[in-house]
Amino acid sequence: MNAAYARLKDHNARLAALGEAAAVLHWDASAMMPRGGGAARGEQLAALAGTIHDLATAPWIADALAEAEAGGDWDAANLALMRRAHLRATALPTELVEASARANSACEKVWRDAKATSDFARVRPYLEEVLRLQRETAAALAAATGLSPYDALMEGYQRGVTAAEVEPVFAAYEAFLREALPRAEEIQAKRGPALPLAGPFPAAKQRELCRDLSLRIGLEADHSRLDESLHPFCGGTPTDVRITTFYSEDDLAKALMGVLHETGHALYERGLPAAWSRQPVGEAAGMAAHESQSLIVEMQASRSDAFLSFLGPKLRALFGGSEAAYATANLAKLWRHVERGFIRVDADELTYPAHVILRFRLERALIGGDLAIGDLPGAWAEGLKALLGIVPPDDARGCLQDIHWHDGAFGYFPSYTLGAMAAAQLMKAARAAEPGLDAALARGDMAPLLGWLRANVHAHGSRLGFQDLLRAATGKPLDPRDFQDHLTARYLDAA
Amino acid sequence: MNAAYARLKDHNARLAALGEAAAVLHWDASAMMPRGGGAARGEQLAALAGTIHDLATAPWIADALAEAEAGGDWDAANLALMRRAHLRATALPTELVEASARANSACEKVWRDAKATSDFARVRPYLEEVLRLQRETAAALAAATGLSPYDALMEGYQRGVTAAEVEPVFAAYEAFLREALPRAEEIQAKRGPALPLAGPFPAAKQRELCRDLSLRIGLEADHSRLDESLHPFCGGTPTDVRITTFYSEDDLAKALMGVLHETGHALYERGLPAAWSRQPVGEAAGMAAHESQSLIVEMQASRSDAFLSFLGPKLRALFGGSEAAYATANLAKLWRHVERGFIRVDADELTYPAHVILRFRLERALIGGDLAIGDLPGAWAEGLKALLGIVPPDDARGCLQDIHWHDGAFGYFPSYTLGAMAAAQLMKAARAAEPGLDAALARGDMAPLLGWLRANVHAHGSRLGFQDLLRAATGKPLDPRDFQDHLTARYLDAA
Repeated sequence: MNAAYARLKDHNARLAALGEAAAVLHWDASAMMPRGGGAARGEQLAALAGTIHDLATAPWIADALAEAEAGGDWDAANLALMRRAHLRATALPTELVEASARANSACEKVWRDAKATSDFARVRPYLEEVLRLQRETAAALAAATGLSPYDALMEGYQRGVTAAEVEPVFAAYEAFLREALPRAEEIQAKRGPALPLAGPFPAAKQRELCRDLSLRIGLEADHSRLDESLHPFCGGTPTDVRITTFYSEDDLAKALMGVLHETGHALYERGLPAAWSRQPVGEAAGMAAHESQSLIVEMQASRSDAFLSFLGPKLRALFGGSEAAYATANLAKLWRHVERGFIRVDADELTYPAHVILRFRLERALIGGDLAIGDLPGAWAEGLKALLGIVPPDDARGCLQDIHWHDGAFGYFPSYTLGAMAAAQLMKAARAAEPGLDAALARGDMAPLLGWLRANVHAHGSRLGFQDLLRAATGKPLDPRDFQDHLTARYLDAA
Repeated sequence: MNAAYARLKDHNARLAALGEAAAVLHWDASAMMPRGGGAARGEQLAALAGTIHDLATAPWIADALAEAEAGGDWDAANLALMRRAHLRATALPTELVEASARANSACEKVWRDAKATSDFARVRPYLEEVLRLQRETAAALAAATGLSPYDALMEGYQRGVTAAEVEPVFAAYEAFLREALPRAEEIQAKRGPALPLAGPFPAAKQRELCRDLSLRIGLEADHSRLDESLHPFCGGTPTDVRITTFYSEDDLAKALMGVLHETGHALYERGLPAAWSRQPVGEAAGMAAHESQSLIVEMQASRSDAFLSFLGPKLRALFGGSEAAYATANLAKLWRHVERGFIRVDADELTYPAHVILRFRLERALIGGDLAIGDLPGAWAEGLKALLGIVPPDDARGCLQDIHWHDGAFGYFPSYTLGAMAAAQLMKAARAAEPGLDAALARGDMAPLLGWLRANVHAHGSRLGFQDLLRAATGKPLDPRDFQDHLTARYLDAA
């Protein structure tokens, strides 16, 4: 490693520390800040973002990157990531970045009202402006990177996988779903409805339960918090991860499964290589990789029969209710219930990919110039009909439901389903490597799973792109059959 | 106002927003952060401090400051403050600023444990490093400003006061105290002991009471928080002020008076001129001015007979107990009790200045190189003996009790007593201007006092230095006789 590379490493450490500061302020804005602090918080975050951007694109950096030399896998990967980030940052004129930030902010604000009143016409001109600037952004990134415009946007969320690779995987899933969904519904109908869990579930008790579970499955009290916010998320920094949730006293599963999901994200952050902290190669490998870690904890592990058999008696002791209601088979009926719905965030794991496939196709067409914003509601309705056989009754339950596009995020959606598929593939490999994994889950013990994930996923940081990470961990690139096998076993094989 | 000045104003707005980010992170570190986040928080604060310093000392600024022209009192004062800040900032190399931030953060963390176990040896090497860097800082600032090293540090907390001005004021107080303290003790002994308030006082009830009082006397719920931390403080930003306290279930006064004190600080921040927000002239006038605002609320207003007569029945309704215990005269005995004690933050207003005088003398000697950290415990014991006639039984109750030095704050302590003196002077002027002030206090209403403070102190921001602010508000510079008159009336005249 030469002097230029050493200087770049120091510089990155400072930029990352400023990024961590912004992450804590974002968490605070959602979990702690009084309403009246909002305008000032906007100034603080804008100042941080502007400062980070200025520092990341300072004139000396191009020369240093050209001169830099780094030996060894990790340093070489680190330098390559620095170069890539610089290429992307300098590809965009400042005016475009600023215009996008303004347009996104304006659109997001109008969207909140438009969604509440299901008034697409209201947000349409704002969304058109957001899209226009995103297409300009995509074109500039494409010119710099040699990727297609849509891939260039997607790379900002998940490196190492292209739309051309995603498309056949999603097409195969669509074909699978066409047969699997009616069959799963049929099996479900034959089994009859679940016994409801008798609420209310006091928020204070839920909070204690969620925190206990979060710690039990591997999070350390000294390095984490659990708080409340309207929209649950995992924020903070790798040594200080901060989960938020929202307690509904009528619905136990919402916070419970939500916190287990966010704990998966948090454990990934905790497991990142500390020796590379605040360097690009020490970060998580991307949004799909991140989602694989939340879903392997929530969907693969926590909703398994084994873990439910541990959870049932614990919940019953805490909240009271009948033994039958908290029996594993009943919890499975409740928390592995399949249903064709309009809302992505409420969807079960079988139909969830259909929501993502719809958005993936629409946003590719929008970025490609093959679909106009004015035609979005119609295209949405058609697409959902083709995938799930249902048509949203209004735009609030259609193309207005997600914040993403209205905040300028195009190319993010595939990460959800790539993560779900990766989670199944990783779980299969972990089970093969750790024969006691399911027996441990039945004791509420995720140590075997977590140990394997730490060694085979977390410890890599972002040294490997999405496909290479899967290759290293499971011996093959993304293989959607593992996800289909998981769904078949869980929803289609059972008597 | 010319282009250079306009550019400097924009630049200051960004720097101030980054400073606000740091303020929120400091609050978070004390009130929210899990222990394991400490090291990363140190990096984040160091990166912010370093970045702010770099931006504040960018080469173009010297030229812009030379070119800048600003008309009108406020802009002229703003520009003068920018020039002074630049002079101070350019006096310090970036490496020194960053090393200090890191050393302070490390020392503060160790101090928490050292204090808990009264283990001065544990923190000693960290404190030595903090002092070494502070002496370097003081020398660099002294060279740039022409002040003495200690004055140069003190100016960072309160502009326009020198140690040479403070010294005779403190010496006079020492002389006053030598006679006043035995006399106050004698009067107190004659009156007999107070009836104790019957605890325990549940923390949850105290929290609600403290929040209610804080809002009642003028803080807005949408612009403030009340949380817990080991060392109570008022942090955050002017539109989002964050008070912390520490609840003792045996001692009602601790959190109650603490929160009233911090509310005084918070009201000052809330009352600063919004039109000058994120500009030097829009900030508070300094730490002594700040302390005058906390002490006028806590010591002058809240411990007055009038306010105690409002508070007593309210507290009795909340916690139960005898009418006699909550009578004004008894609360006055309890909460205006004079006692020679070891702990500054527990001291009454008569002996408090002695604690400050001790620290003022010791820190001047430390910065001057006339006292080594290793000799601090002994010098502390001697000094306290000379001032109050008592010797601390251990270092936890001696030189480990305060966070200040362990967090790199030298030159801060005089502000407490300058503030106490200013509070008495301002209260006298407010009473003269608002004849209904005491009658309002008896109804728990601080609006007349707050209205006067907003107009005569808060609204000035830092347009005026400490002495000029007092001149504008009271018609004269700091006059310690008002404080002695207040103490005489409260502790020495009463039958």
